[in-house]
Amino acid sequence: MDRSLPHVFFKPGTVAVVGASKKARFGSSIPGLLLRHGYQNNLYLVNPREKEINGLPVYTRLLDIPAPIDLVIILVPAPQAPSVIAECIEKNVPAVVLESAGFSEVSSEGALLEEEIRTLLQGTKTRVIGPNCLGVINTHESFSTTEVNLENLRPGNIGIIAQSGTFGNILVDWAPTQGLFFSKLVTIGNRLDVDETDCLLYLADDDKTDVIVLYIEGVKNGRRFYEATREVSRNKPILIFKSGRSPAGRKAAASHTGSLTGEDELYEALFRQSGVIRATSFQELFDIARVFSHEPTMAGPRVCVVTVSGSLGVMAADACTECGLELPDLSPKTVSTLREIAPAWMNVKNPLDVGPSGTFAAALKAVVTDPQINGVIAIPILPEVIMSHITELGIDIRSMYGDPEELRILSPNKPIVLYTLGGPKWIETIHKTYGQTFSLVSSLENAARALSASFWYRKLSMQR
Amino acid sequence: MDRSLPHVFFKPGTVAVVGASKKARFGSSIPGLLLRHGYQNNLYLVNPREKEINGLPVYTRLLDIPAPIDLVIILVPAPQAPSVIAECIEKNVPAVVLESAGFSEVSSEGALLEEEIRTLLQGTKTRVIGPNCLGVINTHESFSTTEVNLENLRPGNIGIIAQSGTFGNILVDWAPTQGLFFSKLVTIGNRLDVDETDCLLYLADDDKTDVIVLYIEGVKNGRRFYEATREVSRNKPILIFKSGRSPAGRKAAASHTGSLTGEDELYEALFRQSGVIRATSFQELFDIARVFSHEPTMAGPRVCVVTVSGSLGVMAADACTECGLELPDLSPKTVSTLREIAPAWMNVKNPLDVGPSGTFAAALKAVVTDPQINGVIAIPILPEVIMSHITELGIDIRSMYGDPEELRILSPNKPIVLYTLGGPKWIETIHKTYGQTFSLVSSLENAARALSASFWYRKLSMQR
Repeated sequence: MDRSLPHVFFKPGTVAVVGASKKARFGSSIPGLLLRHGYQNNLYLVNPREKEINGLPVYTRLLDIPAPIDLVIILVPAPQAPSVIAECIEKNVPAVVLESAGFSEVSSEGALLEEEIRTLLQGTKTRVIGPNCLGVINTHESFSTTEVNLENLRPGNIGIIAQSGTFGNILVDWAPTQGLFFSKLVTIGNRLDVDETDCLLYLADDDKTDVIVLYIEGVKNGRRFYEATREVSRNKPILIFKSGRSPAGRKAAASHTGSLTGEDELYEALFRQSGVIRATSFQELFDIARVFSHEPTMAGPRVCVVTVSGSLGVMAADACTECGLELPDLSPKTVSTLREIAPAWMNVKNPLDVGPSGTFAAALKAVVTDPQINGVIAIPILPEVIMSHITELGIDIRSMYGDPEELRILSPNKPIVLYTLGGPKWIETIHKTYGQTFSLVSSLENAARALSASFWYRKLSMQR
Repeated sequence: MDRSLPHVFFKPGTVAVVGASKKARFGSSIPGLLLRHGYQNNLYLVNPREKEINGLPVYTRLLDIPAPIDLVIILVPAPQAPSVIAECIEKNVPAVVLESAGFSEVSSEGALLEEEIRTLLQGTKTRVIGPNCLGVINTHESFSTTEVNLENLRPGNIGIIAQSGTFGNILVDWAPTQGLFFSKLVTIGNRLDVDETDCLLYLADDDKTDVIVLYIEGVKNGRRFYEATREVSRNKPILIFKSGRSPAGRKAAASHTGSLTGEDELYEALFRQSGVIRATSFQELFDIARVFSHEPTMAGPRVCVVTVSGSLGVMAADACTECGLELPDLSPKTVSTLREIAPAWMNVKNPLDVGPSGTFAAALKAVVTDPQINGVIAIPILPEVIMSHITELGIDIRSMYGDPEELRILSPNKPIVLYTLGGPKWIETIHKTYGQTFSLVSSLENAARALSASFWYRKLSMQR
């Protein structure tokens, strides 16, 4: 039987909410959210103690609904969940999001409830995401099974699989402020049925998703996950941040989502062999995701650092070296081009520290077309006191630091990663001017790790 | 002869600017800055090609000024610097900031200029900061030798020594946006005379400075630095981020400030033995600085993580373990207090994941007074969609996540470090509510490293 994740999880024709409530509590605003996003005529609510919610009639039981249902969202307390799932099966519901907590993450009684549901599901076509999760968000269709401001979510090309609901929801608030945009997000919780591999295989075939990002505390079926990631990583980069690495983290993961995390060394080997890119923190995870979602992959290990601050240039050189990247000499042509316009005090080397010479744009243009260079870390810097003079003079930032569109056209096959530091006006200007085109990352270490991952992934792809 | 750094570097009675200019170029707004900050009657400008600048008369030579000068700021091109320094010596000027670039960081001719100046200084009382630097900022006296918005600089207790001028200036823009506030900042550049050890010894005796932070690319005199840091670290924490660790970074540092960086292993040993705390990135440097500047040191290795997001709790547990910290069980009293108010699905463990139970404030109160716990990482989280409901209901964030003043009074001797993630409104709220009292750090890894450094520093202090 085909157990692949049905499309209706992400764009159901009809939705039922079991445990809909008038009181302000977990999940109570989901019906309102669905009504505002296209489900005026296809939403059904279930609660034996209510007659009407949000202007809709409320059914006593799921089986009372006089229409087929694609997706059921379950919000009832854990002990009532098995009987609701039984009704879903009876009604041939293909997709269920069980959001309630209180299962294996809390007690052995809770684990028994999961086991009971798993038994019910055997031999059926019903798939269940959860429990202890918030289900799915599909930005391209403005569909969500959880309370988020869908209006704020600009569709993107990063697909996210996260273990926990709260974390998933916070990512949804945080990511747009970082210029990160999602295609789909799934929080899988305790994974009594649907697991990370099911979601990965779904996103692998999803044409709105170019990069797959996972935050997990453990893998449910190591062999199946390995085979899936090995296959999928040929076509789409897979980035993983796995926590529960330490004994204290493992204990915490068990309490959090009932995850058995296993030894970290095994995961390390599994990820390496299957072509998965592993991040060491979640900021790094999303900085790497940003670079993969915006930039071409890097054809070689040779990076040029173009900077206004010598100190940040030295830091970038350290970070690149520590990731196995190289900072080669610039080609003679680049050196002579820049020597012509550079003041005497400026070193035309790599890192290329232009200081206050005003040659940043020319330097960037020269290095992105330098055949010695496979990728660039650009560090534009401008003290706000100088920025205010420049703004008064009507000078455009693009003329000082380079026109992003022009640079892309000049060099479509090299990744360009930006890092900056400064006051609030400068940061806002850089985000507006470059944030849409280039990958603005949150640290120099992450800039280097992202380029290193890009090169590693490309090299691996060439080998297979 | 006493070669310690004279106080007049940070609060001169009279200042001369040699190379003052009417044209908009490097340093040209320094006279205006000084006039706005108390030097209406004590500022002298020197430039043989000008008669008047900013309404002040301009002298042809430094020696023409009919008053003693405490501090001279030199902006002339490198080749002219030695003759200006000779005039400073003749005029018995105690403090000189040589901001010009074009010395040993560029060429052997530049290195010879430095050597020439060093010879001139022998046996004199004149001290020179630079070249290739921006000198000093003293926030408590609103004094600066470089163009910054002094109005934005709230005085603080962190003293900064940085190698490079641009980087120092950018820190000044960036730090207030991170809730970091400086006492004094010195950028030392090529260090032809004044070096990091001179500045360190000055800040050691400065009663406005509680924490000393260094960004360096190399140490000039290893033995002297070792002896100074060993002594000073008994009384004030010294935090260092050193770049130029890799071969590429070392080459870059030589081009940047003419620094010979040396083998990194030697520095590692030097820092450890002298009680210096070493950061591995500059974000980490400033997160640790923040914790030392706000928090009491930590008496033991036992941390409790209080969180709304289970995932972030697991990440924090990993980060703590990887830094040598422990997550002990909570004491029976704390468990019973919390069990009374916690819903059935909530695990009363460490990490203490309160989820959406609404018990964060009570949990924090219980753990800060738990004798098992030496320090706390608190992770308040609130999705913006829920935040807007709460704001409508008029609920105060302090009642949900704890009153910072109350927590400080309850437990004055335990560090409390905050980390959060979310949308822009939430981040702003957290900064306003907790940013002044607690240490809001930029990652969970840095939260753990800061607490680990705090414990290490305290243990070391007890041993000596």
